Amino acid sequence: MKLNCDMGESFGSWSKGMDAEVMPYIDMANIACGFHASDPMTMDLTVRMALDNKVEIGAHPGYPDLLGFGRRDLTCSAQELKMIVTYQIAALDGICRVNGTRISYVKPHGALYNKMMQDADVLTAVMAGVADYNRELALVVLAKSDRDAVERLADAKGLQLLFEAFADRAYDDNGNLVKRNQPGAVLQDQQQIEQQVLEIVRQGKVTSLGGLSVPLKADTICVHGDNEQAVSAARHIRESIGVL
Amino acid sequence: MKLNCDMGESFGSWSKGMDAEVMPYIDMANIACGFHASDPMTMDLTVRMALDNKVEIGAHPGYPDLLGFGRRDLTCSAQELKMIVTYQIAALDGICRVNGTRISYVKPHGALYNKMMQDADVLTAVMAGVADYNRELALVVLAKSDRDAVERLADAKGLQLLFEAFADRAYDDNGNLVKRNQPGAVLQDQQQIEQQVLEIVRQGKVTSLGGLSVPLKADTICVHGDNEQAVSAARHIRESIGVL
Amino acid sequence: MKLNCDMGESFGSWSKGMDAEVMPYIDMANIACGFHASDPMTMDLTVRMALDNKVEIGAHPGYPDLLGFGRRDLTCSAQELKMIVTYQIAALDGICRVNGTRISYVKPHGALYNKMMQDADVLTAVMAGVADYNRELALVVLAKSDRDAVERLADAKGLQLLFEAFADRAYDDNGNLVKRNQPGAVLQDQQQIEQQVLEIVRQGKVTSLGGLSVPLKADTICVHGDNEQAVSAARHIRESIGVL
Amino acid sequence: MKLNCDMGESFGSWSKGMDAEVMPYIDMANIACGFHASDPMTMDLTVRMALDNKVEIGAHPGYPDLLGFGRRDLTCSAQELKMIVTYQIAALDGICRVNGTRISYVKPHGALYNKMMQDADVLTAVMAGVADYNRELALVVLAKSDRDAVERLADAKGLQLLFEAFADRAYDDNGNLVKRNQPGAVLQDQQQIEQQVLEIVRQGKVTSLGGLSVPLKADTICVHGDNEQAVSAARHIRESIGVL
Repeated sequence: MKLNCDMGESFGSWSKGMDAEVMPYIDMANIACGFHASDPMTMDLTVRMALDNKVEIGAHPGYPDLLGFGRRDLTCSAQELKMIVTYQIAALDGICRVNGTRISYVKPHGALYNKMMQDADVLTAVMAGVADYNRELALVVLAKSDRDAVERLADAKGLQLLFEAFADRAYDDNGNLVKRNQPGAVLQDQQQIEQQVLEIVRQGKVTSLGGLSVPLKADTICVHGDNEQAVSAARHIRESIGVL
Repeated sequence: MKLNCDMGESFGSWSKGMDAEVMPYIDMANIACGFHASDPMTMDLTVRMALDNKVEIGAHPGYPDLLGFGRRDLTCSAQELKMIVTYQIAALDGICRVNGTRISYVKPHGALYNKMMQDADVLTAVMAGVADYNRELALVVLAKSDRDAVERLADAKGLQLLFEAFADRAYDDNGNLVKRNQPGAVLQDQQQIEQQVLEIVRQGKVTSLGGLSVPLKADTICVHGDNEQAVSAARHIRESIGVL
Repeated sequence: MKLNCDMGESFGSWSKGMDAEVMPYIDMANIACGFHASDPMTMDLTVRMALDNKVEIGAHPGYPDLLGFGRRDLTCSAQELKMIVTYQIAALDGICRVNGTRISYVKPHGALYNKMMQDADVLTAVMAGVADYNRELALVVLAKSDRDAVERLADAKGLQLLFEAFADRAYDDNGNLVKRNQPGAVLQDQQQIEQQVLEIVRQGKVTSLGGLSVPLKADTICVHGDNEQAVSAARHIRESIGVL
Repeated sequence: MKLNCDMGESFGSWSKGMDAEVMPYIDMANIACGFHASDPMTMDLTVRMALDNKVEIGAHPGYPDLLGFGRRDLTCSAQELKMIVTYQIAALDGICRVNGTRISYVKPHGALYNKMMQDADVLTAVMAGVADYNRELALVVLAKSDRDAVERLADAKGLQLLFEAFADRAYDDNGNLVKRNQPGAVLQDQQQIEQQVLEIVRQGKVTSLGGLSVPLKADTICVHGDNEQAVSAARHIRESIGVL
């Protein structure tokens, strides 16, 4: 079970995230690519920080919306979606290349991630942008109760998937994420977060907000590095599930 | 002798250049990469247009300045310069890759091109951004009377150079370009333009604004596709120097 | 009956629209404000062109999306909407002021215009952005069969409305615009366009796509200056409805 | 003697500066206007924070360069400079207006500020952008030993000047700022900073890096709110020179 974390989300003189602090506790760094956050220098610094910590590097492409941090949906044609994905993952892969490494996976960001999990056309376009660039890259998708549709699309492209669970998000009785605007959607208690991670890791299940035990198979767990509390949570999760 | 032309300089809903019209007459398409012009969709369309016309594709990276179209100098550190070059060429190379091709060379744009011809540190940084990404890419530089310094830097990086002459720009008695703000700097007469191209192609020399015959060895000649007159000039040059 | 036209939609080195050609035939210039198009220099040039032609100046604010030209919906909070409207109209008003004039109305652009006509919360936020800046500015809204709701909101803000009809868009039997993706939505025939304008001007009605005569009261008619055909249409409409 | 501080330099989801913490200790808030930093929502929040603290509001316009935070010089024509100044100050003034207040002064940011103090053409263009918008606005300029040239230009425009000294920057024997890249250019010691402020406030002079007592007349002193140390310095300075 690998821990992934969004990284490299600074922009120019604006700093965001405690990348250096959280990097030692994660396995996979999802690095922003300049459309919703980051810039060539930030990408370079973050790639080198990941290399120093022997962390896998993935591209974290988003909608072209710096002001909205890629969190607002932007209507794009399928070809546009494919191209904004390819552009961003290739740019980061190039910066990896000058640093002697390569990206190994792609995890879309924010509104693009949410949209692809709701709209098969968007997911198909994203997959095309990844697979046509490099079929050996894995795509990170949300671990849901029903994964058949997503797997069929990935198989059609010959693309490997990594299903992702969240350490600090509540799940409903169907194994889907409780929406952020619902009460209890985000777990605050450190013990509860660790408990959820251990359930996912050891038993492939999660206890829903309603108290049910729901199956949830995941390949990677998303942690955060936004602030000291998040970094501390990541460290505890790392210690709970064992060394890298 | 190959003809190169700046391409793909539209942006979103703004169109620029007669790319479709000039493409049949050129050998090398310098495609903008999204920093001074272009966007993922424009890059994709332009790559496919180049493929249809069997035209080589090169990256045309510029300073991050859409409003100024990359024509204003922007002070950047050496590492920033390297990274903005790598970012852009990798992004275009990725869009080539999803279309079944690759870039084969790099020609910096506007103020970045001018700066690298004047400042060895900037040229070194640009070369690093190209060579560390892919040492097999050629770098297009201005054909000047004295090319030793540029060749030494390229040799140090193991980078191949393509020296570029201009069809419609006047040269001074030392074989350097007459500055744009000088009278006579830009040739307007179609016959004179063709005459200059033929001199460069057949005799490796150019007649300076002062009337001297000056040696000028070039691997490629830059033509333009900005308007109907430019396209017509490109067609005449193509016919003068022979088929592709 | 006044003719209004979108203007000043160039950006940096990218030119759009035949502003100089269409300006003599219109009464109101809707000038873009830098978020979906335009920039301070373009705004200044367009303001001066309007002054030279004794054309009223209005602000044409849009979503902050240059790449999408403000044609994609962007989810914004009410306060954000208010502020992006105020910011843009104030910026244009400032450029008017240094040129010795002022804006007299506001017409939102593209997706923002469409959204405010569909969503009362968005319309309320836009109205707040206009009225709290300057209650003497008029707001251009779409002339629809049912204008009560819009008028009530405007009255609450003490804001004057200008209802706008389209010269080249087909109307349905309810007096609403036929959607762009429907067949026949955009009138192509010059005579038909003039006929529609004359019906609106003289009789306060329009013949729907279904052949019905539908009441349509408008204060201003939107014409275009995108290309030679549009400019020609604007000239004919101007001649049909009489001098300025 | 008024304390001024750069404010509202967040951008979208990126936060910068401890505006809320430093606001109680200052008299004048220089609020960024969206070109080098800030956005309509940040401007609105910062304006309201200034109002709550009874702090004067000034516009802090910069070059259009978010990535470089307005710290890189950008070649612009005189008319462009004038228009980017007018655009930004009008936009902030509009946001003030919807909040029931107005800007009272303008202080250019970063590279634009430095350039205008070195280049009379740039200063003239900036002054035109301010004075033609509203001749009652004051312009903040660097307090230098020789202020004749600047005063002559301001008089020609009928513009009031506010001369600014720096609490934490060393001065040379001629009363000019020691360049940032020189040793000792930035004062670190809290006592030394307070000492310098008190000398400026009480005696209209400053002790140069070389130990000379140099006359320095200032109307306002620039303090910072970037971090806790800066806020603490601002508080001490406030206490030293007396209540608002």
